[in-house]
Amino acid sequence: AQMSLEQGYEARREFDARYRLLLRTVHDPIAFVSVGDGRVRDINEPAAALLGTTREDLVGSSFFQEFRDRRGEEFIEGLVNAAISENAAGLEVQTRRSRSRVTVTPHIFRAAGERVLICRLSGDDGTSVKYDGLS
Amino acid sequence: AQMSLEQGYEARREFDARYRLLLRTVHDPIAFVSVGDGRVRDINEPAAALLGTTREDLVGSSFFQEFRDRRGEEFIEGLVNAAISENAAGLEVQTRRSRSRVTVTPHIFRAAGERVLICRLSGDDGTSVKYDGLS
Repeated sequence: AQMSLEQGYEARREFDARYRLLLRTVHDPIAFVSVGDGRVRDINEPAAALLGTTREDLVGSSFFQEFRDRRGEEFIEGLVNAAISENAAGLEVQTRRSRSRVTVTPHIFRAAGERVLICRLSGDDGTSVKYDGLS
Repeated sequence: AQMSLEQGYEARREFDARYRLLLRTVHDPIAFVSVGDGRVRDINEPAAALLGTTREDLVGSSFFQEFRDRRGEEFIEGLVNAAISENAAGLEVQTRRSRSRVTVTPHIFRAAGERVLICRLSGDDGTSVKYDGLS
């Protein structure tokens, strides 16, 4: 499908705006992680809070380092396997900074030639519920 | 900022994919509504379930019709005012189909020359919590 430069630019801006507002609006803790290098591509405040730090601290850093007893490639491989398996139960992990038990539920997609994991985090202590109550 | 046709197309596809996966992944009930015509531009399954119907039923339809005792322009105007006010508490409404009490918390943004409301819905009966428990 062909589109003019201007149309493409406008469309990109629209999805960019929708994407950013959506990520900022939702209370579900969400992280986007590159399969290639295991780094956090984007993350929202609820996810950063659950991990015990800030967005700024996490964007560009290695995702596996946020969890106890996890190795880089193994961890990402585990997330990819969970994402492509039929009965995706999610991975139970413990956060390094806040020592909370968290379930990471991943989905995988391809964007601009790169495989990206979108991970929904949820705390066993009902963290997303607590966060929801604040609004 | 200039970009080549191909770069623009790739970038659009990437944000498109991120946006769609994000909307499908989150458990927060979310609806995108055009300020201009009051119609639902996009909505996810949790929001459709809260309103007592399906995504397919809602995309392209008038948002205000899903709520009791609401008029089109007034309702959208109320959402816009709530979005731009400092202490955005959200609008309390009752759904037409399921007769549930729901709070609509709107944010507003401009995309491709159009003003769009992103609305987070939450049920008084803890609907988002119940939904979260299903995963």
